[in-house]
Amino acid sequence: MQGLSCICITGYQTLTTDKGSITCQLCPSDKPAVTTGGFECIRCPGSLTDEGNCKCPQGSVLVERDVNGNLLDEARCETCNRNAPALAVPNSSGDRCERCQATFINTSCDCNPPNVLAGGLCIPPGSLSTNVNPSVNYAQLKVSIQSAWFVNNLYSSSAACLVFSNLTACQSLGNMCVMNMHSFSGLSTDACGLFNTIFRSRAALSSTQDISYWRNNLPWLYYGDEPGLASRVLQTDPVPIGFSFRGRNKNTDIKLLAAVYNVRGEFLRWEPVGGSNLQLCPDTTTKQAAAFSFGTAYQQSCDLSVAKLLDTHPEPLFYDVFMDLGGGENSKLLPLPTLVYNQQYNGRFINQESMKNWYLSRRMFLVDTLSGREKSMSSPPKIIRVASSVKIRFQLVPRTQEGQVFPPLMTVTYRDVPIDTQAVSITFSVEYEMDQNEARAKTDTALGVMGGVAVLYSLLKTVSWKRRIASPLIDVETMLKFLLFYAGDLANVFFAVTVGTGLYWLIFYKAQQFVSVLLPLPAQEEQFVTYIGCAFALKAIQFLHKLILQVSVDIFFIDWERPRSKASRPVQATGEPKRDPSPVSIWRTYFVANEWNEIQTIRKISPTFQIMAVLFFLEVLGFSNLALRDPWPTLERSAQVYTPPYSLMLRYGLAATLWLCIGVLQVIFFTVFHEHFVEDKIRQFVDLCSISNISVLLLSHRCFGYYIHGRSVHGHADTNMEEMNNNLKRESESLCGQRGLLPNTEIQTFQVSLTNRLRSQYERIREPLNRRSRPSRLMDASSANQFEQNARAYHTMNHFLGSIIDHAHSDMDYIVKDKLMFERVIGMEFLEPSEKSIFYNDEAHSFSDVLFYGNEATLLIFDTLFFCVVDLGSQSFVLAAVLTYVQQMIFRLIRNALGRRNLVNKTLVDDRFLI
Amino acid sequence: MQGLSCICITGYQTLTTDKGSITCQLCPSDKPAVTTGGFECIRCPGSLTDEGNCKCPQGSVLVERDVNGNLLDEARCETCNRNAPALAVPNSSGDRCERCQATFINTSCDCNPPNVLAGGLCIPPGSLSTNVNPSVNYAQLKVSIQSAWFVNNLYSSSAACLVFSNLTACQSLGNMCVMNMHSFSGLSTDACGLFNTIFRSRAALSSTQDISYWRNNLPWLYYGDEPGLASRVLQTDPVPIGFSFRGRNKNTDIKLLAAVYNVRGEFLRWEPVGGSNLQLCPDTTTKQAAAFSFGTAYQQSCDLSVAKLLDTHPEPLFYDVFMDLGGGENSKLLPLPTLVYNQQYNGRFINQESMKNWYLSRRMFLVDTLSGREKSMSSPPKIIRVASSVKIRFQLVPRTQEGQVFPPLMTVTYRDVPIDTQAVSITFSVEYEMDQNEARAKTDTALGVMGGVAVLYSLLKTVSWKRRIASPLIDVETMLKFLLFYAGDLANVFFAVTVGTGLYWLIFYKAQQFVSVLLPLPAQEEQFVTYIGCAFALKAIQFLHKLILQVSVDIFFIDWERPRSKASRPVQATGEPKRDPSPVSIWRTYFVANEWNEIQTIRKISPTFQIMAVLFFLEVLGFSNLALRDPWPTLERSAQVYTPPYSLMLRYGLAATLWLCIGVLQVIFFTVFHEHFVEDKIRQFVDLCSISNISVLLLSHRCFGYYIHGRSVHGHADTNMEEMNNNLKRESESLCGQRGLLPNTEIQTFQVSLTNRLRSQYERIREPLNRRSRPSRLMDASSANQFEQNARAYHTMNHFLGSIIDHAHSDMDYIVKDKLMFERVIGMEFLEPSEKSIFYNDEAHSFSDVLFYGNEATLLIFDTLFFCVVDLGSQSFVLAAVLTYVQQMIFRLIRNALGRRNLVNKTLVDDRFLI
Repeated sequence: MQGLSCICITGYQTLTTDKGSITCQLCPSDKPAVTTGGFECIRCPGSLTDEGNCKCPQGSVLVERDVNGNLLDEARCETCNRNAPALAVPNSSGDRCERCQATFINTSCDCNPPNVLAGGLCIPPGSLSTNVNPSVNYAQLKVSIQSAWFVNNLYSSSAACLVFSNLTACQSLGNMCVMNMHSFSGLSTDACGLFNTIFRSRAALSSTQDISYWRNNLPWLYYGDEPGLASRVLQTDPVPIGFSFRGRNKNTDIKLLAAVYNVRGEFLRWEPVGGSNLQLCPDTTTKQAAAFSFGTAYQQSCDLSVAKLLDTHPEPLFYDVFMDLGGGENSKLLPLPTLVYNQQYNGRFINQESMKNWYLSRRMFLVDTLSGREKSMSSPPKIIRVASSVKIRFQLVPRTQEGQVFPPLMTVTYRDVPIDTQAVSITFSVEYEMDQNEARAKTDTALGVMGGVAVLYSLLKTVSWKRRIASPLIDVETMLKFLLFYAGDLANVFFAVTVGTGLYWLIFYKAQQFVSVLLPLPAQEEQFVTYIGCAFALKAIQFLHKLILQVSVDIFFIDWERPRSKASRPVQATGEPKRDPSPVSIWRTYFVANEWNEIQTIRKISPTFQIMAVLFFLEVLGFSNLALRDPWPTLERSAQVYTPPYSLMLRYGLAATLWLCIGVLQVIFFTVFHEHFVEDKIRQFVDLCSISNISVLLLSHRCFGYYIHGRSVHGHADTNMEEMNNNLKRESESLCGQRGLLPNTEIQTFQVSLTNRLRSQYERIREPLNRRSRPSRLMDASSANQFEQNARAYHTMNHFLGSIIDHAHSDMDYIVKDKLMFERVIGMEFLEPSEKSIFYNDEAHSFSDVLFYGNEATLLIFDTLFFCVVDLGSQSFVLAAVLTYVQQMIFRLIRNALGRRNLVNKTLVDDRFLI
Repeated sequence: MQGLSCICITGYQTLTTDKGSITCQLCPSDKPAVTTGGFECIRCPGSLTDEGNCKCPQGSVLVERDVNGNLLDEARCETCNRNAPALAVPNSSGDRCERCQATFINTSCDCNPPNVLAGGLCIPPGSLSTNVNPSVNYAQLKVSIQSAWFVNNLYSSSAACLVFSNLTACQSLGNMCVMNMHSFSGLSTDACGLFNTIFRSRAALSSTQDISYWRNNLPWLYYGDEPGLASRVLQTDPVPIGFSFRGRNKNTDIKLLAAVYNVRGEFLRWEPVGGSNLQLCPDTTTKQAAAFSFGTAYQQSCDLSVAKLLDTHPEPLFYDVFMDLGGGENSKLLPLPTLVYNQQYNGRFINQESMKNWYLSRRMFLVDTLSGREKSMSSPPKIIRVASSVKIRFQLVPRTQEGQVFPPLMTVTYRDVPIDTQAVSITFSVEYEMDQNEARAKTDTALGVMGGVAVLYSLLKTVSWKRRIASPLIDVETMLKFLLFYAGDLANVFFAVTVGTGLYWLIFYKAQQFVSVLLPLPAQEEQFVTYIGCAFALKAIQFLHKLILQVSVDIFFIDWERPRSKASRPVQATGEPKRDPSPVSIWRTYFVANEWNEIQTIRKISPTFQIMAVLFFLEVLGFSNLALRDPWPTLERSAQVYTPPYSLMLRYGLAATLWLCIGVLQVIFFTVFHEHFVEDKIRQFVDLCSISNISVLLLSHRCFGYYIHGRSVHGHADTNMEEMNNNLKRESESLCGQRGLLPNTEIQTFQVSLTNRLRSQYERIREPLNRRSRPSRLMDASSANQFEQNARAYHTMNHFLGSIIDHAHSDMDYIVKDKLMFERVIGMEFLEPSEKSIFYNDEAHSFSDVLFYGNEATLLIFDTLFFCVVDLGSQSFVLAAVLTYVQQMIFRLIRNALGRRNLVNKTLVDDRFLI
């Protein structure tokens, strides 16, 4: 029959089949027919079939042999006795009489009106109206099809279920309702209507397993339709098992079982859910199994071709899904409530509304290629119906400490697919959810409280700023300044809260034993992302503000060197700063300015090393795997196992924490080790000032700034190598005075609060310099006169500031004092410099506040946020690293260029010496 | 029967089945048996079965109804007439006599000796000895099993095949041979032996499809066993289709078809190979389909549990694999030769030997859980046999331009797995291969030729070096130096060849239309990797050599400034350098030394930007996907599609090319744009020398070095700000002389070839400095005298070099000349400075050769190789980037620290000023 063996043509009997050949012989004309076996010829009582066998009329059987197997000369056609007690009808191959089906009335095998013959059964009259609606409604395509399957089976199944309580008929009817997506049309003549009719008629009978929605002999299709039932079912009784991620009681297996029925209502088997039974998308076993590991967010999608679905799913299978609660022999099963997203209830999509309207159900199918067949069961379907999305959602019991969950909800979304579609996209997902309101409330509280504190702190900063610029008025600028300060503080608040939250989730989710927290779903992360955005935007404002302040700071180098020709006695206020015959060399100033220019953008950390280290941890050591939505704190993941999606929150928490940790470690390394044992650029600069006999006055505010006292203890620094070496040697042997401003002190760095008068005088002297619109251009011939003025102003300023430091102006004198601890902490001075300026001892080199060096915290947080924001946007740590590097480079270039210009403007050092 | 309906207990007849209930009634004692239908009671002629039905003796049938279906009062047992012409035996259900099987002798249904009854057939005597060996040999486990399947079927199949030419029997016999892994044991009584006996007996008959190894009615299991047949089959006739990666004729689909047989020898269907038929490992359809896209190296591995294999493969399927050559209706099929790796030929594993011994075969199976069943077919198997590795290998026709391949070879490796094993690892792979000898020969030729040129070039360098150190002797040091030079040149050769090769494969493989080249297999890449290793090691030697040379270079800053007190006339050789009353300030020297210290490690590119850019291209833009072993030049790959393994060669070619390209672009950007419009550190340094009135003499060899002429055109530089500005202004307005060494020239930088005498004098002066064992420590009291000496030496040297430059020593005079073009190219001086030193004009600032700046090529190549070597070792570009950064950082620190120490030693500048 497969072309692998020979058969004789019609009218020929087979003699032998041997050696791959066959011998045939024409039947004699008196026995023209061939027996059904094909080896003999026989005479027929009637006509012949096309195959050359004898043919008997309907209702009778063909007899070719007697009871002992002897061939008859002539075949006989025997009528089966349809009446009692024989009740015989021909069997399916028509060669024997057999008893007819049991539902036929006992007296005869005929089903006579008013009985109804349906599906091989004889239905007694009056039990069910024959007026049923066998059409399937494809609402998404606005098409309704007279389904061949429904035409053939709807009435007979309903009747057999109702009348004979036939179990498979009842299941089959239920399946038809499921194929209709559990929808009620309001009429009671469709599948679900008929099912409900029968369901109600069974109200008196006991129910299965004490579940009132599960009537005896009927499949369980619906929960009740009382309003609010859904939330009672889903959120009242926890599942009596606890999930635990590790430890002795580790339990992460979600054991689901499905009772599988075929479309005819026959129970096929119990199947453990997993592998490919609910997951249509093909994938490796390990990956598919990850769906049922508790805590692993799972989503699998693919496009399946309709042709393939048709091929692999000739008829639908129906699944009643249960959760296996374990317990060995006496294992209990928990039925999973199912939400059919497309279910209609009198035309309303109730399951797409809020939970209180939901109408939960049971039983589902994956692919239905059957109900869309219109003419006959063998014709191809016009439309197939596919469960395009199956989602199992677990909800944690609030405040559980033992990993308890409510009964999981299975949400099924069906899609109607015309047969000419190429592919249909399929999704299977498992979600874990907990009530996030509490966490959100806590976050908001923290934000509120810390935001309030930030207001106070910003106010304090504003007051301090007002004092430092010596302006008592509250004007628009003050308001703006307050807002700028507040931006910075608020950014810190947002940053602290978001990092705290991220870290909280990272630690608590990944480290918990019994499940007590679950990650927020992607939709619930939006607020968090907004907070990060706020933190970044505000931090950027603060950073730019600081940058602008830094590149507009007032700076002047006070050269203490006096010409040699006046002998090498200690220099004091020496009258006119006229040109000397042997001029004081400017090279020391150049040297100091050059160094100042170079330390503008050094930082307490190495920013590139920072990026590389973070990248190393995240991408090479695999820390990024900690941000996956599963409970495993392992760094290495094989490519074979399922990789869940990333949680933005964990990604942020991880990246920010790592960045900060490495940053802090670097700061510790650089401040504790590197600056003590290798080099400390800031200290070196202060030393250089001392050696080169040059003081630096930095005014970051109108009346506030920093002073580095650099007067050489040797009187002269402008000397040759021997003397320099001698000087250095004498100093190292403590043969000369100490470097401090006050005698016998070592303190060289001060914060200064200037009096208004001093500042005014300072500005008066600076005036000619300010007139210059741009850095001195040597090519600019018209500025010849300008040079003169500048040089004069420079000398005047040098002399003026020198004399101030030397207490030569009694009306602009100053005192030196220590800053109070509290003053240091809040960064504000309590004393107002009304009569005398105040020099506060400052061993901490706080003049680095006008450099990148003193603002490491701001820079580090800004970089962290930049890195995280890019990563959140692109989900790529490498891109974030590259862009952070570019950002750092750009801002460093900007800071350097503007800072250098400012230095040129303020100190008159030609920019050719700032290399 | 599934527990879904009720049945009556034994002895009761069924009355009604209705409403889910059943009514039963005890049969009366005169009719104690129930009919087979269950609805009636009947009297039996003999005893009753356990189910309460009548029981008839063997060879007879039970008759309960007459021919019209009327129930008899007493059932009858009728004997079937076994003799001709009835030839009847009871049918399988025992209720009817039917004709017996056709192989039985026509006179009776009994198979009497000497006929042999086997497998339901009656075999005539003498056709085949009944002495067959039904054991299956599991050689890997050293176990042999009497297989139930073989016991039942081996003799009958062989006999039926031989005697009756039964097609399925022949196939079934062939399958048993395949289950024995095509192995001959030397005996002819095992499956393959029997198959071959029959095969030989069919020699006279025609063969199928004109293939001489495929005899009529038999399956095709073997190619012939002539020596060398394998290579004739595999490497003679190309497949008559061409593969093409793109364009109009794009053809990358490998269409394989399999004829599938079940174990009983029935032909089941034609199956297109793909999906999961040969690929046991589950995966997504898209990924599995990638196996049959030409040019995509495919490998899929997984561990499958034995339990699952048992479940999914109750009996083996057999595949005859063909390649579909296309052509629509008349499509031709090409049989794929199969190599069974485990096949034994008289105890030898011939297929594990060299190709000329191979014994090709056809037909394979994937999982055989059948032959390992020992007692009965229903008992669990003791051992299963799994095709643990299936590999399809395509070999390109040499020098094809049209993508032609030889017939692909399928290699199958079976594994015997005891049933108590947990999991078995399965691999399916597709490989593409071409003859690499030609490419390898070309590479080796290139290496040889270029290596030879490198020897010459290194010799030249050695000669040049000898001349520059003014030493004519050829000693061990010379040899060593030659080897060091040769290391660098050979590294370049290796680098050029490997990058060229990598790039060649990258371009030609990825861009070809018709397939003409295929990537080397991983095993063939070993030599290439060795070359890269050589390149890296040699380059590292060169780099370290240069580093050591750089940090031991001789440097001296010549200060032209003379004390003011001697008026501002041009300075000439001015006698004693004793201490002046108004000393010349050392600060300009400090400034210049400080700048020199800073430019030591600047480079023509930004190394960190380089890393970031490469990382960005590779990891963010997805260039790394170009290195995958498939022909697609796309950068973005979805996670859904199959990702082939990386080709080391392509990875190297890609990374190296990208690194070089970005490096070269950076060099161009920095030299063309940045240095002209932003800043040029080298030019700035030369300018600074000029402005500060300081010349620099660098001696990289004993008698060769560089000179930067920095004598100020203004006579004095040690002055105040006004004068500095005036000087600069005058110069910019061209009011003073030019900066060059010769009058009216601008050339300030020179290469210098010193005479031996000059160098000797230089060394004599330096002697006191050399005595210092370490940098001057100011704290070191014992070195007080040393200071004096040093300072004297410094002044002497300053004076001496100044006077040399000023032509004050007639016996150590010098001339200034241009270098010949050829001299520049080969980096060697033709003239020997015997009488006069020679100053070569050098506008290209070649003094940067003693800095990182002038060795960008070496550094870039070293970095490239470092990056690539780390990547080849770790397959991670991110790790390579991080480590390259760390490497650069470390070498920069080392270079800086050592260079600084050298500077301190050689110039006497205190290291506190080098900040």
